[in-house]
Amino acid sequence: MAIPLLQIALDNTTLSGALKSAKAVGNEVDVIEAGTILCLAEGMEAVRCLRALYPDKIILADTKCADAGGTVAKMCADAGADWMTVICSATIPTMKAALKEVKELQVELYGDWTFDHAKAWKEAGITQAVYHQSRDALLAGQTWSDSDLEKIKKLTEMGFKVSVTGGLEIDTLKLFKDINVFTFITGRSIRDAEDPAKEARKFKEEILKYWR
Amino acid sequence: MAIPLLQIALDNTTLSGALKSAKAVGNEVDVIEAGTILCLAEGMEAVRCLRALYPDKIILADTKCADAGGTVAKMCADAGADWMTVICSATIPTMKAALKEVKELQVELYGDWTFDHAKAWKEAGITQAVYHQSRDALLAGQTWSDSDLEKIKKLTEMGFKVSVTGGLEIDTLKLFKDINVFTFITGRSIRDAEDPAKEARKFKEEILKYWR
Repeated sequence: MAIPLLQIALDNTTLSGALKSAKAVGNEVDVIEAGTILCLAEGMEAVRCLRALYPDKIILADTKCADAGGTVAKMCADAGADWMTVICSATIPTMKAALKEVKELQVELYGDWTFDHAKAWKEAGITQAVYHQSRDALLAGQTWSDSDLEKIKKLTEMGFKVSVTGGLEIDTLKLFKDINVFTFITGRSIRDAEDPAKEARKFKEEILKYWR
Repeated sequence: MAIPLLQIALDNTTLSGALKSAKAVGNEVDVIEAGTILCLAEGMEAVRCLRALYPDKIILADTKCADAGGTVAKMCADAGADWMTVICSATIPTMKAALKEVKELQVELYGDWTFDHAKAWKEAGITQAVYHQSRDALLAGQTWSDSDLEKIKKLTEMGFKVSVTGGLEIDTLKLFKDINVFTFITGRSIRDAEDPAKEARKFKEEILKYWR
Protein backbone atom coordinates (compact mmCIF):
# COMPACT_ATOMS: atom_id res chain seq x y z
CA MET A 1 0.00 0.00 0.00
CA ALA A 2 1.13 3.56 -0.62
CA ILE A 3 2.02 5.67 2.40
CA PRO A 4 -0.94 7.88 3.34
CA LEU A 5 -0.43 11.62 3.13
CA LEU A 6 -0.92 13.88 6.12
CA GLN A 7 -3.18 16.89 5.77
CA ILE A 8 -3.73 19.76 8.19
CA ALA A 9 -7.17 21.34 8.14
CA LEU A 10 -7.06 25.03 8.95
CA ASP A 11 -10.54 25.63 10.28
CA ASN A 12 -9.66 28.89 11.91
CA THR A 13 -12.14 31.76 11.90
CA THR A 14 -9.51 34.39 11.05
CA LEU A 15 -6.78 34.59 8.44
CA SER A 16 -4.18 35.52 11.04
CA GLY A 17 -5.15 32.53 13.17
CA ALA A 18 -4.90 30.24 10.14
CA LEU A 19 -1.47 31.61 9.22
CA LYS A 20 -0.26 31.10 12.78
CA SER A 21 -1.40 27.45 12.60
CA ALA A 22 0.10 27.05 9.13
CA LYS A 23 3.44 28.44 10.25
CA ALA A 24 3.52 25.88 13.08
CA VAL A 25 2.99 22.78 10.89
CA GLY A 26 2.90 23.74 7.22
CA ASN A 27 6.36 22.36 6.46
CA GLU A 28 5.63 19.03 8.18
CA VAL A 29 2.48 18.05 6.27
CA ASP A 30 1.76 17.09 2.65
CA VAL A 31 -1.54 18.90 2.17
CA ILE A 32 -2.62 22.24 3.63
CA GLU A 33 -6.38 22.71 3.73
CA ALA A 34 -8.17 26.03 3.80
CA GLY A 35 -11.11 24.69 5.81
CA THR A 36 -14.73 25.53 5.10
CA ILE A 37 -14.87 27.75 8.18
CA LEU A 38 -11.78 29.65 7.01
CA CYS A 39 -13.04 29.99 3.42
CA LEU A 40 -16.40 31.31 4.65
CA ALA A 41 -14.71 33.63 7.14
CA GLU A 42 -12.02 35.12 4.94
CA GLY A 43 -12.87 34.14 1.37
CA MET A 44 -10.37 33.18 -1.29
CA GLU A 45 -7.75 35.52 0.20
CA ALA A 46 -7.06 32.70 2.65
CA VAL A 47 -6.25 30.34 -0.22
CA ARG A 48 -4.10 33.00 -1.92
CA CYS A 49 -2.11 33.53 1.30
CA LEU A 50 -1.53 29.79 1.81
CA ARG A 51 -0.38 29.44 -1.81
CA ALA A 52 1.96 32.42 -1.37
CA LEU A 53 3.51 30.92 1.76
CA TYR A 54 3.63 27.26 0.63
CA PRO A 55 4.31 27.24 -3.12
CA ASP A 56 5.35 23.57 -3.09
CA LYS A 57 2.57 22.06 -0.96
CA ILE A 58 -0.76 20.70 -2.14
CA ILE A 59 -3.36 23.33 -1.23
CA LEU A 60 -6.96 22.20 -0.78
CA ALA A 61 -9.93 24.56 -0.70
CA ASP A 62 -12.61 22.80 1.35
CA THR A 63 -15.55 24.67 -0.13
CA LYS A 64 -17.99 21.74 0.13
CA CYS A 65 -19.40 23.18 -3.08
CA ALA A 66 -23.08 22.34 -3.65
CA ASP A 67 -23.84 24.36 -6.77
CA ALA A 68 -22.26 26.64 -9.37
CA GLY A 69 -19.36 24.20 -9.55
CA GLY A 70 -17.60 25.91 -12.42
CA THR A 71 -17.58 29.37 -10.83
CA VAL A 72 -16.50 28.16 -7.40
CA ALA A 73 -13.81 25.87 -8.82
CA LYS A 74 -12.42 28.62 -11.03
CA MET A 75 -12.19 30.95 -8.02
CA CYS A 76 -10.35 28.25 -6.07
CA ALA A 77 -7.95 27.46 -8.91
CA ASP A 78 -7.30 31.17 -9.56
CA ALA A 79 -6.52 31.59 -5.85
CA GLY A 80 -3.96 28.80 -6.08
CA ALA A 81 -5.79 25.70 -4.85
CA ASP A 82 -4.83 22.33 -6.36
CA TRP A 83 -7.83 20.44 -5.04
CA MET A 84 -11.29 21.41 -3.87
CA THR A 85 -14.25 19.63 -2.29
CA VAL A 86 -17.85 19.23 -3.39
CA ILE A 87 -20.64 18.01 -1.13
CA CYS A 88 -22.04 14.58 -2.01
CA SER A 89 -25.53 16.00 -2.54
CA ALA A 90 -24.34 18.26 -5.36
CA THR A 91 -25.65 17.26 -8.77
CA ILE A 92 -23.45 15.50 -11.31
CA PRO A 93 -23.51 18.58 -13.62
CA THR A 94 -22.16 20.65 -10.69
CA MET A 95 -19.37 18.14 -10.14
CA LYS A 96 -18.52 17.96 -13.84
CA ALA A 97 -18.39 21.75 -14.09
CA ALA A 98 -16.01 21.91 -11.11
CA LEU A 99 -13.82 19.11 -12.50
CA LYS A 100 -12.96 21.24 -15.51
CA GLU A 101 -11.33 23.92 -13.37
CA VAL A 102 -9.30 22.18 -10.65
CA LYS A 103 -6.64 19.49 -10.77
CA GLU A 104 -8.59 17.07 -8.57
CA LEU A 105 -11.97 17.10 -6.93
CA GLN A 106 -12.97 15.43 -3.67
CA VAL A 107 -16.52 14.39 -2.83
CA GLU A 108 -17.31 15.02 0.83
CA LEU A 109 -19.44 12.19 2.16
CA TYR A 110 -22.17 13.42 4.49
CA GLY A 111 -25.68 12.13 5.15
CA ASP A 112 -27.33 9.28 3.28
CA TRP A 113 -25.08 8.85 0.23
CA THR A 114 -25.12 5.42 -1.42
CA PHE A 115 -22.71 3.33 -3.46
CA ASP A 116 -24.96 3.97 -6.47
CA HIS A 117 -24.12 7.65 -6.02
CA ALA A 118 -20.45 6.73 -5.70
CA LYS A 119 -20.64 4.85 -8.99
CA ALA A 120 -22.10 7.94 -10.66
CA TRP A 121 -19.31 10.14 -9.23
CA LYS A 122 -16.72 7.69 -10.54
CA GLU A 123 -18.31 7.73 -13.98
CA ALA A 124 -18.29 11.53 -13.89
CA GLY A 125 -14.52 11.45 -13.46
CA ILE A 126 -14.17 12.09 -9.74
CA THR A 127 -11.04 10.52 -8.30
CA GLN A 128 -11.19 11.38 -4.61
CA ALA A 129 -13.63 11.02 -1.72
CA VAL A 130 -13.49 12.26 1.86
CA TYR A 131 -14.97 9.95 4.45
CA HIS A 132 -16.05 12.19 7.25
CA GLN A 133 -17.05 11.76 10.80
CA SER A 134 -19.05 14.95 11.26
CA ARG A 135 -17.53 17.25 13.86
CA ASP A 136 -20.97 17.74 15.34
CA ALA A 137 -21.65 13.99 15.28
CA LEU A 138 -18.37 13.44 17.13
CA LEU A 139 -19.38 16.03 19.69
CA ALA A 140 -22.63 14.08 20.04
CA GLY A 141 -20.58 11.00 21.00
CA GLN A 142 -20.36 9.03 17.73
CA THR A 143 -17.07 7.43 16.71
CA TRP A 144 -15.41 5.20 14.06
CA SER A 145 -17.22 1.89 13.61
CA ASP A 146 -16.61 -1.31 11.63
CA SER A 147 -19.34 -0.12 9.28
CA ASP A 148 -17.32 3.07 8.61
CA LEU A 149 -14.18 1.05 7.92
CA GLU A 150 -16.00 -1.29 5.54
CA LYS A 151 -17.43 1.61 3.56
CA ILE A 152 -14.00 3.24 3.29
CA LYS A 153 -12.51 -0.04 2.08
CA LYS A 154 -15.27 -0.46 -0.50
CA LEU A 155 -14.65 3.06 -1.82
CA THR A 156 -10.93 2.35 -2.21
CA GLU A 157 -11.80 -0.88 -4.02
CA MET A 158 -13.96 1.16 -6.41
CA GLY A 159 -10.82 3.12 -7.24
CA PHE A 160 -11.34 6.25 -5.17
CA LYS A 161 -8.43 7.84 -3.37
CA VAL A 162 -10.08 8.15 0.05
CA SER A 163 -9.18 10.70 2.70
CA VAL A 164 -10.47 10.12 6.21
CA THR A 165 -11.19 12.74 8.80
CA GLY A 166 -13.02 13.46 12.00
CA GLY A 167 -11.51 13.30 15.45
CA LEU A 168 -8.35 11.49 14.32
CA GLU A 169 -5.75 11.02 17.03
CA ILE A 170 -2.41 9.21 16.81
CA ASP A 171 -4.03 6.23 18.52
CA THR A 172 -6.90 6.02 16.02
CA LEU A 173 -4.72 5.71 12.90
CA LYS A 174 -4.13 1.99 13.43
CA LEU A 175 -7.89 1.39 13.05
CA PHE A 176 -7.34 1.94 9.32
CA LYS A 177 -4.23 -0.26 8.97
CA ASP A 178 -5.81 -2.71 6.51
CA ILE A 179 -7.07 0.08 4.26
CA ASN A 180 -5.30 1.89 1.46
CA VAL A 181 -6.00 5.33 2.99
CA PHE A 182 -4.93 8.18 0.70
CA THR A 183 -4.78 11.00 3.23
CA PHE A 184 -5.33 11.42 6.94
CA ILE A 185 -6.85 14.80 7.64
CA THR A 186 -6.16 16.20 11.07
CA GLY A 187 -7.16 19.45 12.63
CA ARG A 188 -7.20 20.43 16.23
CA SER A 189 -5.36 17.32 17.43
CA ILE A 190 -2.26 18.78 15.73
CA ARG A 191 -3.10 22.49 15.77
CA ASP A 192 -3.85 22.53 19.50
CA ALA A 193 -0.84 20.42 20.50
CA GLU A 194 1.82 22.10 22.61
CA ASP A 195 4.32 21.59 19.77
CA PRO A 196 2.28 21.17 16.56
CA ALA A 197 5.30 20.37 14.36
CA LYS A 198 6.41 17.63 16.74
CA GLU A 199 2.84 16.28 16.88
CA ALA A 200 2.68 16.21 13.05
CA ARG A 201 5.95 14.25 12.96
CA LYS A 202 4.48 11.80 15.49
CA PHE A 203 1.49 11.29 13.17
CA LYS A 204 3.89 10.59 10.30
CA GLU A 205 5.89 8.13 12.40
CA GLU A 206 2.69 6.32 13.39
CA ILE A 207 1.62 6.16 9.73
CA LEU A 208 4.98 4.56 8.83
CA LYS A 209 4.38 1.84 11.42
CA TYR A 210 1.41 0.49 9.46
CA TRP A 211 1.86 1.58 5.87
CA ARG A 212 5.01 1.27 3.79
CA MET B 1 -52.17 32.87 1.37
CA ALA B 2 -49.51 35.29 2.55
CA ILE B 3 -47.75 37.36 -0.09
CA PRO B 4 -44.40 35.77 -0.98
CA LEU B 5 -41.28 37.77 -0.22
CA LEU B 6 -38.77 38.68 -2.93
CA GLN B 7 -35.12 37.84 -2.37
CA ILE B 8 -32.11 38.87 -4.44
CA ALA B 9 -29.21 36.44 -4.46
CA LEU B 10 -25.89 38.21 -4.76
CA ASP B 11 -23.73 35.50 -6.28
CA ASN B 12 -21.03 37.88 -7.39
CA THR B 13 -17.39 36.87 -7.22
CA THR B 14 -16.24 40.22 -5.80
CA LEU B 15 -17.47 42.41 -2.96
CA SER B 16 -17.54 45.48 -5.20
CA GLY B 17 -19.64 43.64 -7.78
CA ALA B 18 -22.05 42.49 -5.07
CA LEU B 19 -22.38 46.01 -3.69
CA LYS B 20 -23.08 47.35 -7.17
CA SER B 21 -25.86 44.78 -7.57
CA ALA B 22 -27.16 45.50 -4.07
CA LYS B 23 -27.27 49.24 -4.74
CA ALA B 24 -29.37 48.61 -7.85
CA VAL B 25 -32.09 46.53 -6.14
CA GLY B 26 -31.49 46.39 -2.38
CA ASN B 27 -34.29 48.79 -1.52
CA GLU B 28 -36.82 46.96 -3.72
CA VAL B 29 -36.49 43.49 -2.24
CA ASP B 30 -37.35 41.97 1.13
CA VAL B 31 -34.35 39.70 1.59
CA ILE B 32 -30.76 40.31 0.50
CA GLU B 33 -28.71 37.15 0.15
CA ALA B 34 -24.95 36.95 0.37
CA GLY B 35 -24.70 34.01 -2.06
CA THR B 36 -22.46 31.02 -1.53
CA ILE B 37 -20.13 32.23 -4.29
CA LEU B 38 -19.86 35.66 -2.63
CA CYS B 39 -19.31 34.18 0.86
CA LEU B 40 -16.57 31.90 -0.47
CA ALA B 41 -15.01 34.72 -2.49
CA GLU B 42 -15.01 37.47 0.12
CA GLY B 43 -15.83 35.82 3.44
CA MET B 44 -18.00 37.31 6.16
CA GLU B 45 -16.89 40.85 5.21
CA ALA B 46 -19.53 40.61 2.47
CA VAL B 47 -22.25 39.96 5.07
CA ARG B 48 -20.93 42.78 7.27
CA CYS B 49 -21.04 45.23 4.33
CA LEU B 50 -24.60 44.24 3.39
CA ARG B 51 -25.72 44.64 7.00
CA ALA B 52 -24.03 48.05 7.17
CA LEU B 53 -25.78 49.23 4.01
CA TYR B 54 -29.20 47.64 4.65
CA PRO B 55 -29.83 47.77 8.39
CA ASP B 56 -33.58 47.15 7.99
CA LYS B 57 -33.56 44.31 5.46
CA ILE B 58 -33.43 40.60 6.15
CA ILE B 59 -29.87 39.48 5.38
CA LEU B 60 -29.29 35.83 4.49
CA ALA B 61 -25.88 34.14 4.47
CA ASP B 62 -26.12 31.28 1.98
CA THR B 63 -23.32 29.25 3.46
CA LYS B 64 -24.88 25.84 2.60
CA CYS B 65 -23.22 24.76 5.85
CA ALA B 66 -22.44 21.03 5.99
CA ASP B 67 -20.56 20.79 9.28
CA ALA B 68 -19.40 22.83 12.26
CA GLY B 69 -22.88 24.38 12.39
CA GLY B 70 -22.35 26.30 15.59
CA THR B 71 -19.10 27.96 14.49
CA VAL B 72 -20.36 28.89 11.03
CA ALA B 73 -23.71 30.16 12.34
CA LYS B 74 -22.02 32.27 15.00
CA MET B 75 -19.77 33.85 12.34
CA CYS B 76 -22.83 34.63 10.22
CA ALA B 77 -24.82 36.07 13.13
CA ASP B 78 -21.83 38.13 14.33
CA ALA B 79 -21.48 39.50 10.78
CA GLY B 80 -25.12 40.60 10.83
CA ALA B 81 -27.00 37.80 9.07
CA ASP B 82 -30.56 37.06 10.19
CA TRP B 83 -30.84 33.75 8.39
CA MET B 84 -28.39 31.19 7.08
CA THR B 85 -28.59 28.00 5.04
CA VAL B 86 -27.47 24.45 5.76
CA ILE B 87 -27.17 21.73 3.15
CA CYS B 88 -29.72 18.93 3.44
CA SER B 89 -26.99 16.33 3.85
CA ALA B 90 -25.70 17.97 7.05
CA THR B 91 -26.32 15.92 10.17
CA ILE B 92 -29.08 16.82 12.64
CA PRO B 93 -26.46 17.75 15.31
CA THR B 94 -24.95 20.23 12.80
CA MET B 95 -28.37 21.75 12.16
CA LYS B 96 -29.21 21.95 15.87
CA ALA B 97 -25.88 23.62 16.63
CA ALA B 98 -26.51 26.22 13.91
CA LEU B 99 -30.09 26.83 15.08
CA LYS B 100 -28.80 28.09 18.42
CA GLU B 101 -26.91 30.95 16.79
CA VAL B 102 -29.12 32.43 14.03
CA LYS B 103 -32.71 33.65 14.02
CA GLU B 104 -33.86 31.19 11.37
CA LEU B 105 -32.23 28.38 9.48
CA GLN B 106 -33.03 27.20 5.94
CA VAL B 107 -32.35 23.69 4.69
CA GLU B 108 -31.14 23.73 1.08
CA LEU B 109 -32.65 20.80 -0.79
CA TYR B 110 -30.17 19.17 -3.15
CA GLY B 111 -29.76 15.57 -4.23
CA ASP B 112 -31.77 12.66 -2.92
CA TRP B 113 -33.38 14.08 0.22
CA THR B 114 -36.58 12.39 1.41
CA PHE B 115 -39.67 13.42 3.34
CA ASP B 116 -38.38 11.27 6.20
CA HIS B 117 -35.40 13.61 6.32
CA ALA B 118 -37.78 16.57 6.19
CA LYS B 119 -39.67 15.19 9.18
CA ALA B 120 -36.39 14.94 11.11
CA TRP B 121 -35.50 18.57 10.21
CA LYS B 122 -38.94 19.69 11.41
CA GLU B 123 -38.50 17.83 14.67
CA ALA B 124 -35.08 19.45 15.09
CA GLY B 125 -36.74 22.85 14.97
CA ILE B 126 -36.00 23.93 11.40
CA THR B 127 -38.65 26.27 10.04
CA GLN B 128 -37.50 26.98 6.49
CA ALA B 129 -36.53 25.03 3.39
CA VAL B 130 -35.17 26.14 0.02
CA TYR B 131 -36.40 24.18 -2.97
CA HIS B 132 -33.69 24.51 -5.52
CA GLN B 133 -33.33 23.90 -9.16
CA SER B 134 -29.59 23.52 -9.36
CA ARG B 135 -27.97 26.20 -11.49
CA ASP B 136 -25.91 23.53 -13.19
CA ALA B 137 -28.98 21.31 -13.68
CA LEU B 138 -30.74 24.26 -15.30
CA LEU B 139 -27.77 24.78 -17.59
CA ALA B 140 -28.06 21.09 -18.45
CA GLY B 141 -31.62 21.76 -19.63
CA GLN B 142 -33.77 20.72 -16.65
CA THR B 143 -36.74 22.87 -15.59
CA TRP B 144 -39.69 23.06 -13.11
CA SER B 145 -41.91 19.98 -13.24
CA ASP B 146 -45.22 18.94 -11.65
CA SER B 147 -43.17 16.68 -9.41
CA ASP B 148 -41.22 19.73 -8.17
CA LEU B 149 -44.45 21.61 -7.48
CA GLU B 150 -45.98 18.68 -5.59
CA LYS B 151 -42.91 18.35 -3.38
CA ILE B 152 -42.94 22.09 -2.61
CA LYS B 153 -46.64 21.90 -1.71
CA LYS B 154 -46.05 18.91 0.55
CA LEU B 155 -43.23 20.75 2.36
CA THR B 156 -45.53 23.75 2.97
CA GLU B 157 -48.20 21.37 4.26
CA MET B 158 -45.64 19.97 6.70
CA GLY B 159 -45.32 23.50 8.05
CA PHE B 160 -42.10 24.61 6.36
CA LYS B 161 -41.77 28.14 5.02
CA VAL B 162 -40.49 27.24 1.56
CA SER B 163 -38.37 29.47 -0.66
CA VAL B 164 -38.05 28.52 -4.30
CA THR B 165 -35.16 29.31 -6.57
CA GLY B 166 -33.46 28.39 -9.82
CA GLY B 167 -33.97 30.14 -13.11
CA LEU B 168 -37.05 32.09 -11.96
CA GLU B 169 -38.36 34.58 -14.49
CA ILE B 170 -41.45 36.78 -14.23
CA ASP B 171 -43.29 34.30 -16.45
CA THR B 172 -42.44 31.31 -14.25
CA LEU B 173 -43.93 32.73 -11.02
CA LYS B 174 -47.48 31.77 -11.99
CA LEU B 175 -46.44 28.09 -12.01
CA PHE B 176 -46.49 28.31 -8.20
CA LYS B 177 -49.84 30.14 -7.86
CA ASP B 178 -51.56 27.38 -5.89
CA ILE B 179 -48.69 27.11 -3.43
CA ASN B 180 -48.04 29.09 -0.27
CA VAL B 181 -44.53 30.11 -1.39
CA PHE B 182 -42.63 31.94 1.34
CA THR B 183 -39.95 33.62 -0.77
CA PHE B 184 -39.04 33.79 -4.43
CA ILE B 185 -35.28 33.92 -4.80
CA THR B 186 -34.01 35.59 -7.94
CA GLY B 187 -30.53 36.24 -9.14
CA ARG B 188 -29.33 37.10 -12.57
CA SER B 189 -32.82 37.61 -14.01
CA ILE B 190 -33.00 40.78 -11.88
CA ARG B 191 -29.29 41.59 -11.51
CA ASP B 192 -28.64 41.43 -15.24
CA ALA B 193 -31.76 43.39 -16.25
CA GLU B 194 -31.20 46.76 -17.90
CA ASP B 195 -32.98 48.41 -14.96
CA PRO B 196 -32.74 45.97 -12.02
CA ALA B 197 -34.94 48.06 -9.69
CA LYS B 198 -37.70 48.21 -12.31
CA GLU B 199 -37.37 44.47 -12.90
CA ALA B 200 -37.66 43.80 -9.16
CA ARG B 201 -40.85 45.92 -9.06
CA LYS B 202 -42.22 43.88 -12.00
CA PHE B 203 -41.57 40.68 -10.04
CA LYS B 204 -43.47 42.17 -7.08
CA GLU B 205 -46.38 43.20 -9.32
CA GLU B 206 -46.53 39.70 -10.79
CA ILE B 207 -46.52 38.19 -7.29
CA LEU B 208 -49.49 40.41 -6.32
CA LYS B 209 -51.49 39.07 -9.28
CA TYR B 210 -51.56 35.58 -7.79
CA TRP B 211 -51.06 35.97 -4.05
CA ARG B 212 -52.88 38.38 -1.77
